[in-house]
Amino acid sequence: MTIPYAARMARVQPSAIRELLRLGTDPEVISFGGGYPDPSLFPVAELAQVYADLLTPEHATALQYTASVGLPELRSAVAARLTADGMPAGPDDVLIIQGGQQGLDLAGKLVIDAGDVVVTDNPTFLGALIAFNPYEPRYAPVRTDVDGMDTDHLQQVLEANPDTVMIYVVPDFANPSGVTLSLPRRRRLLELAEAYGVLVVEDTPYRPLRYSGEELPTLKSLDTVGQVLHLGSFSKLLAPGLRLGWAHASPEVLERLALLKLAADTQNSTLNMAATAGYLGRYDLDAHLARVVPVYRHKRDLMLTTLASTLPPGVQFTEPDGGLFTWLTFPPGFDAAAFMAQTLLPEAKVAYVPGATFFPVDHEPNHARLSFSGVPDDRLVHGVSELGRLLTRTLGRT
Amino acid sequence: MTIPYAARMARVQPSAIRELLRLGTDPEVISFGGGYPDPSLFPVAELAQVYADLLTPEHATALQYTASVGLPELRSAVAARLTADGMPAGPDDVLIIQGGQQGLDLAGKLVIDAGDVVVTDNPTFLGALIAFNPYEPRYAPVRTDVDGMDTDHLQQVLEANPDTVMIYVVPDFANPSGVTLSLPRRRRLLELAEAYGVLVVEDTPYRPLRYSGEELPTLKSLDTVGQVLHLGSFSKLLAPGLRLGWAHASPEVLERLALLKLAADTQNSTLNMAATAGYLGRYDLDAHLARVVPVYRHKRDLMLTTLASTLPPGVQFTEPDGGLFTWLTFPPGFDAAAFMAQTLLPEAKVAYVPGATFFPVDHEPNHARLSFSGVPDDRLVHGVSELGRLLTRTLGRT
Repeated sequence: MTIPYAARMARVQPSAIRELLRLGTDPEVISFGGGYPDPSLFPVAELAQVYADLLTPEHATALQYTASVGLPELRSAVAARLTADGMPAGPDDVLIIQGGQQGLDLAGKLVIDAGDVVVTDNPTFLGALIAFNPYEPRYAPVRTDVDGMDTDHLQQVLEANPDTVMIYVVPDFANPSGVTLSLPRRRRLLELAEAYGVLVVEDTPYRPLRYSGEELPTLKSLDTVGQVLHLGSFSKLLAPGLRLGWAHASPEVLERLALLKLAADTQNSTLNMAATAGYLGRYDLDAHLARVVPVYRHKRDLMLTTLASTLPPGVQFTEPDGGLFTWLTFPPGFDAAAFMAQTLLPEAKVAYVPGATFFPVDHEPNHARLSFSGVPDDRLVHGVSELGRLLTRTLGRT
Repeated sequence: MTIPYAARMARVQPSAIRELLRLGTDPEVISFGGGYPDPSLFPVAELAQVYADLLTPEHATALQYTASVGLPELRSAVAARLTADGMPAGPDDVLIIQGGQQGLDLAGKLVIDAGDVVVTDNPTFLGALIAFNPYEPRYAPVRTDVDGMDTDHLQQVLEANPDTVMIYVVPDFANPSGVTLSLPRRRRLLELAEAYGVLVVEDTPYRPLRYSGEELPTLKSLDTVGQVLHLGSFSKLLAPGLRLGWAHASPEVLERLALLKLAADTQNSTLNMAATAGYLGRYDLDAHLARVVPVYRHKRDLMLTTLASTLPPGVQFTEPDGGLFTWLTFPPGFDAAAFMAQTLLPEAKVAYVPGATFFPVDHEPNHARLSFSGVPDDRLVHGVSELGRLLTRTLGRT
């Protein structure tokens, strides 16, 4: 007998990311694998204060249900931050979501039918692929260089794929590549999206973490026709354990996302929303960021300097202006996963994320993603130096 | 030009529940509409203590990412509660989710393809319909009486619908009907599910809130073949604002749900999971329930007594053994939504949930759902009495 539900279930298959997340838990391994912010930078004392103020009998409503679109005071606070970032918005233009990841799931549920085409950078954020996969899209990756998505190639891809429903892009300090979409390409991407009638999903988790270069306008701030769904997150701004992010889009898109949010999990944690709104009302998030950014800038500089001085010729790395990641490209034919499993981990207890998994279609084996956050300076230098030493030995050998 | 994404989006349409949730926010209205627990019963002082202990520099990990399946100590604590409730489980048999609602979304995503059949009670939980709708099932509702789903009718429905992938049921004190599935029907439902190869989704948010009658075994505890996905929630146990629930199922089902959880929102709030695990480790949840249950029992008794003494002949109500709801059935042809909009709200500022929306297919107009939680005694008696008075006048007139 064929059991329909068993056949449906068989399509959901394990992916690489959970194994990688497990790897990060062995304290002996120097892991450049995670995209974790540095927990010593979390504003713990301030958050302790706002939680203490909320958890009193008079405020028991912070433990109750609230509106599925999010607590009004948090929507207002996010709208004010969007407005300050060139995206004029009121509270009704903001949907509170469970981190940026939920925005990807809801966007996928909203517009992807099986067989529809989703355009992405190449490589692109693995979490986006994981979110979209259950809706069974086909992926059309676009060539990506140090200025982000190549819009000439984008036009060819859109022309060749009339079933395209979405362009997914991380314009600032992309995961995994670390590159930033240039301003001319931002404008061109929007022209093309309008011409071909495609929703643009702009994912900006790292935007507040800029260490060098000039800030560029978001795609949403350049959007004149309501075609951009802008996603942001408090995970790197404040702390990921709160699971708070936001979606900002045209009323047509946002109203439907709100219905899917209600369907997906009713609402975010009232308590965490109230606490974050309380933090934003009482403390200065930008002052907090001004303390955080120099720490990550130092980490980035330390990693890039150490990479430059220890990597053998033939290995390239990107120089990100912000975010948490640099992206290594090894010589053609090099297997970054095998090198990590057979050499780097056993000999040096150092880990990165092999890059193949970030490619939607052709899984190029000769890349790796390194995060410079969350590893102490001495271990960072030691780990990168060991990577350089073992790469030099391995590449010299072949 | 046809824009594919706009066509996809157009299928997501507003539903009744958000309007209803808004209604509950006017403080002048005596609303029996919400399914909100009484916030004065939340263990605020105890939660304040566990949050204070977590929000210290040494515990900054409570603000960090953690495993997508949930914090290990919370999985263990839930497994212990499941084991005590006749469902032997270890931590790996538990997936932490964003309230029971997320379990419905993930279950729908796992097994429903467009056109597949989902079997439900008639009426059934509106939130389940909202969760399943984006996956475009057909619904096959089964006749429901005071002993829950009629398993003779269930067999006919399964026989007539070979594309059935899921039976969705709230066995204890269902929403909206308040009825409990009898033990013989629990056994028969499982026999039929096995015979027809259908996944059973057992949703148990109200199970800890029993005020009378004998506790019945969960469907999962009677499941010998791994066909039951058991969902539970801390929303009515502890507080809904934490957004914490759990899924318990066979390894085959749970592993796939865990992947969909990762795809949907990465993980639940680490802080809320750590706090709930801390609460469960330090305080006695069953002692807390022993304080809560008599309060709700009193509310139920007060509502049922007042209904019995004020409703006119021809209006029936269910007598729930637990949970938060009673279900009113008006004479055939009565329009409960029109009566509320034209008479009950304007004349008495009293609200309920018109029942039509709880029917998956044929929206019977002559029902209403009343919740007895969250309204103070005097307002409860006044509101129900006004309902009785206006119904008597209206029904006497026709």
